[in-house]
Amino acid sequence: MNMIDIINKKRLKQDLTKEEFQFVIDGYLNKEIPDYQVSALLMAICLNGMTYKETSDLTGVMLKSGDQIDLSKIKGRKVDKHSTGGVGDKITLILGPLVASCGVKVAKMSGRGLGHTGGTIDKLESIPGFQVELKQEEFINQVNKLGFALVSQSGNLVPADKKLYALRDVTGTVESIPLIASSIMSKKCASGADKIVIDVKVGEGALVKTLEDARTLAQYMVHIGKEHGKETVCVLTRMSEPLGFAIGNALEVQEAMDVLQDKGPEDVKKIVIELGKYMVSMGLDISISEAEKLVKTHLKDGSAYDTFLKFVKAQGGEIENLSFAPKVFSIKSSKNGIVNHIDAYKLGILVHQMGAGRETLEDEIDYGVGIVLSKKVGDFVLENEELMKVYLNKKDVKLNDLINCFSIENDFTNQTPLIYEVIK
Amino acid sequence: MNMIDIINKKRLKQDLTKEEFQFVIDGYLNKEIPDYQVSALLMAICLNGMTYKETSDLTGVMLKSGDQIDLSKIKGRKVDKHSTGGVGDKITLILGPLVASCGVKVAKMSGRGLGHTGGTIDKLESIPGFQVELKQEEFINQVNKLGFALVSQSGNLVPADKKLYALRDVTGTVESIPLIASSIMSKKCASGADKIVIDVKVGEGALVKTLEDARTLAQYMVHIGKEHGKETVCVLTRMSEPLGFAIGNALEVQEAMDVLQDKGPEDVKKIVIELGKYMVSMGLDISISEAEKLVKTHLKDGSAYDTFLKFVKAQGGEIENLSFAPKVFSIKSSKNGIVNHIDAYKLGILVHQMGAGRETLEDEIDYGVGIVLSKKVGDFVLENEELMKVYLNKKDVKLNDLINCFSIENDFTNQTPLIYEVIK
Repeated sequence: MNMIDIINKKRLKQDLTKEEFQFVIDGYLNKEIPDYQVSALLMAICLNGMTYKETSDLTGVMLKSGDQIDLSKIKGRKVDKHSTGGVGDKITLILGPLVASCGVKVAKMSGRGLGHTGGTIDKLESIPGFQVELKQEEFINQVNKLGFALVSQSGNLVPADKKLYALRDVTGTVESIPLIASSIMSKKCASGADKIVIDVKVGEGALVKTLEDARTLAQYMVHIGKEHGKETVCVLTRMSEPLGFAIGNALEVQEAMDVLQDKGPEDVKKIVIELGKYMVSMGLDISISEAEKLVKTHLKDGSAYDTFLKFVKAQGGEIENLSFAPKVFSIKSSKNGIVNHIDAYKLGILVHQMGAGRETLEDEIDYGVGIVLSKKVGDFVLENEELMKVYLNKKDVKLNDLINCFSIENDFTNQTPLIYEVIK
Repeated sequence: MNMIDIINKKRLKQDLTKEEFQFVIDGYLNKEIPDYQVSALLMAICLNGMTYKETSDLTGVMLKSGDQIDLSKIKGRKVDKHSTGGVGDKITLILGPLVASCGVKVAKMSGRGLGHTGGTIDKLESIPGFQVELKQEEFINQVNKLGFALVSQSGNLVPADKKLYALRDVTGTVESIPLIASSIMSKKCASGADKIVIDVKVGEGALVKTLEDARTLAQYMVHIGKEHGKETVCVLTRMSEPLGFAIGNALEVQEAMDVLQDKGPEDVKKIVIELGKYMVSMGLDISISEAEKLVKTHLKDGSAYDTFLKFVKAQGGEIENLSFAPKVFSIKSSKNGIVNHIDAYKLGILVHQMGAGRETLEDEIDYGVGIVLSKKVGDFVLENEELMKVYLNKKDVKLNDLINCFSIENDFTNQTPLIYEVIK
């Protein structure tokens, strides 16, 4: 086997075999195959695609490239959740405790954020004292006891994905649906859960911009899950305006707590219930309508919130010490109208630059900064009425950049649906 | 400007600008842009193509990346000739002296051979004493005096092509028509001639396998030539069986001399006359039919051969000492029939392995080895009649490998034309 032949095969639109993927990944990890050959292959994959079988084979090879987490000591069915990433996405913080309070086991590993969307680990670290690293035994014990634990992804989980992703990032080969699918699914499969629910974000604020691409991505992931014995459900949800009101680490934790106390924004609540019903249905082997009832009850009666508080405490967090940036500004509208659009992507970038995200993995995060929207798409707004509150600390932001994220018009044609469809 | 944006543009099928090509080539040559980004871009170009304008812009940037030969001290019009490479291609050895004897100036630079086709420089070096390196002044004086000189390509001629080609070779990105066109034309344009005739070889023994691809390549090159003020004519010729009878350095020099003495294989003679008439017509500004007459006369009356002998002597060669490998074997047919096919590519590889070519630029060539065909496609052959003579020295060759290059059948459907078409 020879790397040039493999590249040529893909360039000529032929299917690669599992053995060929094994050759590529092994050779790349042990440095026998150079970056420039792998990037040529990645570009050929970007442009000529991969079949379900190829993508599933690549995923299988990748997931075996490092540690595979053994969750067999956790009693009951383990259901995992993943989001392809959006601005203001605090769903996991609510969904994990909620689903756990219904009796499903959620042993979750998350990554840190890079780019315009924050990572769940960063959000949790805004809670003073919160420990994102647990020993494997502590992790399993906590899931057995509380139903939920969330830790930072192990250093050696799918090293092939780490190396490939870093290369894709600098070679214009990120936006390939089969490559995205194999990257996500290799990590999910290596994380050891039995079933997986994936929130596929669609729109300008997301990795995947169109419904058609999101559907294709979902179909790939469902197929890969099936091939690897992990039932997978994908829920396609809107990511054009930010999710909820809050963007920024501590602000999003606060909003998550609001929703857990039956307050907070409707869109967040709806997505939580939608994802929750599939997780609970699969986790407890009950019908989707039964699961939905259970989820709604546990969200309303405080049992989800109770699990959240226990979870934070178990991992050392002092939720009472959660704090926000000291300087708060109110940004007001200069005209009457209806909010037609809020640019999630640009707001994500601005909050990132205000200190909520990092440029390199060594940067320090300013957990208290961020934005809380006062208006969402479809809302009426009067001149001089508040559009958002900005929580600032050391890093600055330009006023016009913020205001330009809003488009306010006299008319409004209907918003796209919040939940597009479910693929399973 | 940023390399990732440039890669993404091409991935999304958008056209690149001249400034972007300049950025890529400059950055790659001064090592600011790494191999893995360039290979991703090359693969995107392979799969998404380039327009005439892009290809011409890239060629312009490449040709200025190193030395540009100044031939202004040569009196009269300089016409260059190039072949995209085939097995048994000794055309330049005949055509250069022939055209020069008609009064056209041919100041030719050639490369060494790598792969299954030999290089003209290697063929000339099979003549004892022949010097392929001349000082710029000697080169120009010789062209002024004899009309023809042939030297090894300067070390700093289009360094961008050298570096890109080396990367394409190991990343499955050789077979892109616009990249092939820009590689050839950047070297031709930097070599300083006024007009260019290109022999585009088509078939299994050539870089370009189909007539359609050859036509496209020719159209790109004609267009690039026009954009850079160098009128270019492409002649598409057959390369399925080897050209002529001889394959191997000294054997091909001998065959070239045969043709120059109005002997030798018909196919070689026909292509020489076809290419020659365009070179002479462009070089002397006369009609093609007048040029054809002139070329035929000079080939017949010995003036071309005379120029060849003077050229070899001027560059130090002792043609009387040309010698062939000591062991000569006659390979005979095992059946009666008609030769339907002779696999040029495989024979090229076999002769290469017998020592006529090199694997790396450091390898030594065995100039005397090779094959002389006794039969060509369309010929009748009797059982036990000779198919070819093999000239061997130190390196061996397997008998079955040689015989398998011939397919002999009872029927024969017509051979494809030797000269397909002319694109200008």
